[in-house]
Amino acid sequence: MKVGILIGSDSDFPIMKPAVEFLKSFGIEFELRVASAHRTPNRVREFVANGEKSGIRAFIVGAGAAAHLAGVVASYTTLPVVAVPINATPLNGLDALLSTVQMPSGVPVATMAVNGAKNSAIFVAEILALSDESLAKKLKDYREDMADKVNEKNLRVQSQL
Amino acid sequence: MKVGILIGSDSDFPIMKPAVEFLKSFGIEFELRVASAHRTPNRVREFVANGEKSGIRAFIVGAGAAAHLAGVVASYTTLPVVAVPINATPLNGLDALLSTVQMPSGVPVATMAVNGAKNSAIFVAEILALSDESLAKKLKDYREDMADKVNEKNLRVQSQL
Amino acid sequence: MKVGILIGSDSDFPIMKPAVEFLKSFGIEFELRVASAHRTPNRVREFVANGEKSGIRAFIVGAGAAAHLAGVVASYTTLPVVAVPINATPLNGLDALLSTVQMPSGVPVATMAVNGAKNSAIFVAEILALSDESLAKKLKDYREDMADKVNEKNLRVQSQL
Amino acid sequence: MKVGILIGSDSDFPIMKPAVEFLKSFGIEFELRVASAHRTPNRVREFVANGEKSGIRAFIVGAGAAAHLAGVVASYTTLPVVAVPINATPLNGLDALLSTVQMPSGVPVATMAVNGAKNSAIFVAEILALSDESLAKKLKDYREDMADKVNEKNLRVQSQL
Amino acid sequence: MKVGILIGSDSDFPIMKPAVEFLKSFGIEFELRVASAHRTPNRVREFVANGEKSGIRAFIVGAGAAAHLAGVVASYTTLPVVAVPINATPLNGLDALLSTVQMPSGVPVATMAVNGAKNSAIFVAEILALSDESLAKKLKDYREDMADKVNEKNLRVQSQL
Amino acid sequence: MKVGILIGSDSDFPIMKPAVEFLKSFGIEFELRVASAHRTPNRVREFVANGEKSGIRAFIVGAGAAAHLAGVVASYTTLPVVAVPINATPLNGLDALLSTVQMPSGVPVATMAVNGAKNSAIFVAEILALSDESLAKKLKDYREDMADKVNEKNLRVQSQL
Amino acid sequence: MKVGILIGSDSDFPIMKPAVEFLKSFGIEFELRVASAHRTPNRVREFVANGEKSGIRAFIVGAGAAAHLAGVVASYTTLPVVAVPINATPLNGLDALLSTVQMPSGVPVATMAVNGAKNSAIFVAEILALSDESLAKKLKDYREDMADKVNEKNLRVQSQL
Amino acid sequence: MKVGILIGSDSDFPIMKPAVEFLKSFGIEFELRVASAHRTPNRVREFVANGEKSGIRAFIVGAGAAAHLAGVVASYTTLPVVAVPINATPLNGLDALLSTVQMPSGVPVATMAVNGAKNSAIFVAEILALSDESLAKKLKDYREDMADKVNEKNLRVQSQL
Repeated sequence: MKVGILIGSDSDFPIMKPAVEFLKSFGIEFELRVASAHRTPNRVREFVANGEKSGIRAFIVGAGAAAHLAGVVASYTTLPVVAVPINATPLNGLDALLSTVQMPSGVPVATMAVNGAKNSAIFVAEILALSDESLAKKLKDYREDMADKVNEKNLRVQSQL
Repeated sequence: MKVGILIGSDSDFPIMKPAVEFLKSFGIEFELRVASAHRTPNRVREFVANGEKSGIRAFIVGAGAAAHLAGVVASYTTLPVVAVPINATPLNGLDALLSTVQMPSGVPVATMAVNGAKNSAIFVAEILALSDESLAKKLKDYREDMADKVNEKNLRVQSQL
Repeated sequence: MKVGILIGSDSDFPIMKPAVEFLKSFGIEFELRVASAHRTPNRVREFVANGEKSGIRAFIVGAGAAAHLAGVVASYTTLPVVAVPINATPLNGLDALLSTVQMPSGVPVATMAVNGAKNSAIFVAEILALSDESLAKKLKDYREDMADKVNEKNLRVQSQL
Repeated sequence: MKVGILIGSDSDFPIMKPAVEFLKSFGIEFELRVASAHRTPNRVREFVANGEKSGIRAFIVGAGAAAHLAGVVASYTTLPVVAVPINATPLNGLDALLSTVQMPSGVPVATMAVNGAKNSAIFVAEILALSDESLAKKLKDYREDMADKVNEKNLRVQSQL
Repeated sequence: MKVGILIGSDSDFPIMKPAVEFLKSFGIEFELRVASAHRTPNRVREFVANGEKSGIRAFIVGAGAAAHLAGVVASYTTLPVVAVPINATPLNGLDALLSTVQMPSGVPVATMAVNGAKNSAIFVAEILALSDESLAKKLKDYREDMADKVNEKNLRVQSQL
Repeated sequence: MKVGILIGSDSDFPIMKPAVEFLKSFGIEFELRVASAHRTPNRVREFVANGEKSGIRAFIVGAGAAAHLAGVVASYTTLPVVAVPINATPLNGLDALLSTVQMPSGVPVATMAVNGAKNSAIFVAEILALSDESLAKKLKDYREDMADKVNEKNLRVQSQL
Repeated sequence: MKVGILIGSDSDFPIMKPAVEFLKSFGIEFELRVASAHRTPNRVREFVANGEKSGIRAFIVGAGAAAHLAGVVASYTTLPVVAVPINATPLNGLDALLSTVQMPSGVPVATMAVNGAKNSAIFVAEILALSDESLAKKLKDYREDMADKVNEKNLRVQSQL
Repeated sequence: MKVGILIGSDSDFPIMKPAVEFLKSFGIEFELRVASAHRTPNRVREFVANGEKSGIRAFIVGAGAAAHLAGVVASYTTLPVVAVPINATPLNGLDALLSTVQMPSGVPVATMAVNGAKNSAIFVAEILALSDESLAKKLKDYREDMADKVNEKNLRVQSQL
């Protein structure tokens, strides 16, 4: 039970790192490739085809500009594809967002916020947790931790008033 | 193993119907509510809380305008939440899209295209198929059928040249 | 007669600070919470429910990205809710603006400019001034002071010509 | 205790009518003028100046295109100004929305959704209800009625499944 | 010396027809396929691979929504790819435009206006005319005809004054 | 003392007609051409060059899409150029607006609202009125008439309450 | 024969300075005020009313955000009003542009590019040059100078190849 | 067999440099001019007219703001015109993109991404390669090099995990 991560360009890696770190912290196995829908289309196709056989259960894809990578991955698999549009051009990520989310009927791509890498990993964890109770438990704990952190921040801000 | 569907307004039902029909055609059980994040917030909370107990494994949410419904659902559950931003105002669905997709870190909402209801159901089927081989098979067949239909359309268009 | 202030994230506090300072300078009592519509939904609900009992007469809400916080607050109260969409993502605050202002019929949120925190406090003061003549007087004086400052700036600029 | 309603053009009246009807149904007195920030600026100024004396406690303003009317009203009063940006040009109301909501610091305009006339009246009712318990009660009943209607619609949609 | 035309969906054919008609009227041979980047990715790849061998010298691609088709074609060939973003969703073609034009460095797609099908054919004719003098002559005649038609329209409008 | 009117396409004439009618009603002489910056560039250049000699004192230009016509006119003259961006594509006139208004430093184009043809004529009248007192008088009367009409509309709307 | 310059805020002065400098370099007299449509509406009205009497023949107005200042000036005069929308908020000047250019029929504002201050002065010079031959000559010389500068830059760039 | 490069302003040269460098590295001859559609329209016309005679087979045009330069070039030639919209104003290049890509029917401009200069040169190489096998070979090698570089980057990123 592995996650396949595809990143369109190494310059997008810093944006996608929180997804990697989340998966690590949750003990979710993953395989990552930098591969481009446009520059290395065959690599992408092979990674998706082989990945399915080698135990990948979901894909996380990060790409910017005319962000076709997630759609291309989705065209080769019926596994869930979760995508992060990346702000990589003067158009502030609106290009990547629309290129990613506006998929035609039949081939869905589950789109996260612009640069929202961590949520892509959390969402994949939510998927995998459907058949993994310990993961489900971790997600609930993570939510509670988040709430605690918000409450701590609340106190910190209040002390500044 | 059920899907919970929430629709923000009955006027959004015609847009969301293809999701319902897809689930039916795939034999995926679902429970649907028209409930509004703003007009009936307690109903939404109860549906999400109870739903989790009564066998719901994923949510599909359709909403327009300041489309908060999917985010509100996601705030109450760590089950996967898949959302359809609906074009319901003069702003052409851009409001619903940004309100849905730009979720903050920690609470993901998997966003489909504006009015992309069918893809929300396909995506949920992809999630459920991870632990249901017959569903996985159906999805692959569905893809092949789609490809066949594209090919038929190709012939039809070519005959018009 | 108190104002309840909700801020979606502590990182939004610097943007919201001018609202706090305006209320202080006008001697308007307030209670502030950092609480997130998505990470601490129950905290938000409790704050709104209790707040109403403990003397809150209006809410000021600041949030960015898919800014649902003001809408969530408005779903739990019929007190006036005034919102500040915050520029917190690569999309320049357009996401927060549309998520905040495009509320469906029945549950209004009074929206200020992107990052327009001070105006949220002035607007709440205008509301409270309807039943507080000294506040009404202060607001008129504040306007006159503003006009005087513009006139001073006018002279300063003219001296540079 | 009256509401002053200003509409930039008679062609905007159909959009603004739900605000008028809401005020009537709640028994809130109002005075309405069709007056243009650009074509009849003196009328607007006089209406605002006199209105304040003749018992107006809040303004509702509806305008489209370069929608300056609400800002102009706000420049002449420290009473609350609530505005409805109207979709009146090929730009789908984005022009009216930005012209209305992006007010500079010091002179707030409480902005509703594009064409969101009814919410402007509800919001003004929320303001007036702060010193009118029967109005506050009506608003709570109205919310409950809305919730009931959503629930009825829920049943109607469910019966179609 | 042939042109390969790819259309993402048969519903886009009416928009793309002027390209077909232009090529016909100029006696430029073409081969057309309805094929989807997402539903029939292998068909697309095969068409591009074979096409190159069977005499195709340039591609015209029309697609809407998350319009990946032109980028996918360009990823498989170094022949010129000319694309028409098609207005096929509530977002007025902005999604297709940005998905098509914002190609990353290294893999160009020559983008025409939203729904600008005829220009894709004219542009391909301009390319082919570089090594075909009769085509170059036809293009110059076509321009002169266009100018004549504008002049006729000028007279018609003037007669209405 | 004449106005030169250039319209990029005869299909834009219905949008530009109110400009023509305004000039007629004010007795301002004009010369109109349908001429395209892209299809008949030489016609445009000649019209501007000759026009200046034959008594044209200002240009009104209406064009849609990549609306270059006004900029092209402005590049050939230092007479005032007033432009109307026309809504002629799926992008709602935003393309024409930005193509017209974002002129680089040195070559101004005075831009009116999308489809705002009448204002182009009024603005030219304001220019010509600087050296024509009777025109100045007419403009003031026209404003008063407008105000009267708003007041009549005000009464009509009030009678419907 | 003077130009009236109005600037909405002293923080906009650096953007508007090129307009001032252009007028100075052309020997065009001007009167400048920092005055706000919203904070000092009466100042604006008085400046426009008096200005007309004291020899002002055209207005230049620079304002950002919900940029109402030019429209307000235009509502008080039938002299030409030329406006510069200023980029003063996170929305990149789109708010100021639409607030300025989308004027309703009857009250034109001649809009320049976002931050396009110099062009406002050049355009006013073009207006005044209609009755001032030496000014007309200066404008033509200025154009030639500009062309010379472009040609020099051309040589400089070519030398870098 | 030469390429004509036109750049609207010397400030755009750094953005366009990658196009120049690509052509040099491929041994494609070019002639470059800094010339402005608005400041030096006759220079542009002459360059296009003469260029055609002196062996230019395609144009590359880079321009920002109301980017008319490519359209103006296209109006004078039936050679292929490839354009790079440049991000040169607060509007993030959206103005240049729409001004460039939304060309009316009959006069195509092949538009690249905002600031996508290198792709303009690659695309022109693809055109010229249709009648130059060594160029075609270079393009295929370039693609393979790109793929190799992506693969190297892939390894580098993987080593950081």
